[in-house]
Amino acid sequence: MARTYRDIKADILGRITRGDWKPGSLLPGEIELAETYGVARATVNRAMRELTEDGIIERKRKSGTRVRLSPLRQARFDIPIVRHEVTEQGAAYRYALVSSTVGPAPDWLRARMGLQTGDEVRHLTCLHMADGQPYQYEDRWISLALLPQARVEDFAATAPTEWLIAQIPYSEVDISLSATAADEGLAAHLACRPGEPLLQIERSTRWDGKAVTFVQLVHRPGHRMTTRY
Amino acid sequence: MARTYRDIKADILGRITRGDWKPGSLLPGEIELAETYGVARATVNRAMRELTEDGIIERKRKSGTRVRLSPLRQARFDIPIVRHEVTEQGAAYRYALVSSTVGPAPDWLRARMGLQTGDEVRHLTCLHMADGQPYQYEDRWISLALLPQARVEDFAATAPTEWLIAQIPYSEVDISLSATAADEGLAAHLACRPGEPLLQIERSTRWDGKAVTFVQLVHRPGHRMTTRY
Repeated sequence: MARTYRDIKADILGRITRGDWKPGSLLPGEIELAETYGVARATVNRAMRELTEDGIIERKRKSGTRVRLSPLRQARFDIPIVRHEVTEQGAAYRYALVSSTVGPAPDWLRARMGLQTGDEVRHLTCLHMADGQPYQYEDRWISLALLPQARVEDFAATAPTEWLIAQIPYSEVDISLSATAADEGLAAHLACRPGEPLLQIERSTRWDGKAVTFVQLVHRPGHRMTTRY
Repeated sequence: MARTYRDIKADILGRITRGDWKPGSLLPGEIELAETYGVARATVNRAMRELTEDGIIERKRKSGTRVRLSPLRQARFDIPIVRHEVTEQGAAYRYALVSSTVGPAPDWLRARMGLQTGDEVRHLTCLHMADGQPYQYEDRWISLALLPQARVEDFAATAPTEWLIAQIPYSEVDISLSATAADEGLAAHLACRPGEPLLQIERSTRWDGKAVTFVQLVHRPGHRMTTRY
């Protein structure tokens, strides 16, 4: 039976994990591998491409393909829409708009988003709940220069993330993860003690080089982001 | 001049960002796109595959290819070897072994790593420094059932991560990110106040289904993990 690219991939991976091909060592070329395995070069190519994407090997135009010295280089985390995240955990999701204002962007935000003096923003704070308990607190700023329709939108029913996705289907995003201590306000919203360590995601979104939105998402105590590879 | 898959990818992305093809809408088939662009079907296929990997579109065997409703689904974070991370910031890296013991795995660790009663582990704690300041505190457990050579290895000069990579080039990894409060010990190691919020990475590594190592990496206050896409 003809061997598929999956068979070739598994075989190459096996040789690497068994140490036949050690970290840093050069792999045979695609033509040679195709001959060895008795398959088309395209089949070997697909296996090699997936191994490259998986971070197992690295391919360089001139010096050939090597086993990566440090294969565990990247981790992908799902950053789902919080409604999906909560529902997938089997909990009932509820969204509440806490506050909403329109006004000129404060200095720190102008610097952060790259806005001009006088540029206005819609500022929203929201609470996302799982089974009636606070799950995530959202502090969101939307540029009215780029999205003037955000000035009049009623965010009481629709969470800003879901509204934004419908406005701007694809954007450039900067994400930053950090640990923060609950201040009095956060502690009240997330029903925890002031000073408790909380996992925070900050996200800046641009579209066509212009700032769209900046958000701080702070999770309830004990929240973990997990991934497997 | 013949258009490359990159041209096709950029054009499709352009249509999506301009809203010609809206979130949720069905894209033309590969054959139709190949005719439209006047390129080989393989060229369209490669562009579509990258757009799928980028999370922009989703392809389903029966119902065709659609623009994703929620394109910003995954974030990739580099989790580099700390020595590389520090050096790339232009700081001088230094590693220090703080403690080292061998003994049976404690109950919580057996549960966490899936070890048997009586299984022994090497337990190491280490400090990674940047320009002489604490940068990351590492609390590492290595299974001696799987890696008996870890019993006698001298970790005074080589950090456990770098040693492990040379032993086991590829493994299955679980990663968990959370915020933790510095206890007295951590505060002393990381030169911060007890109670300060710290970003923690926990990583469990298996090889061929068996536990290799479990590590907690705690970063100095203010540390951020960032990514852009």
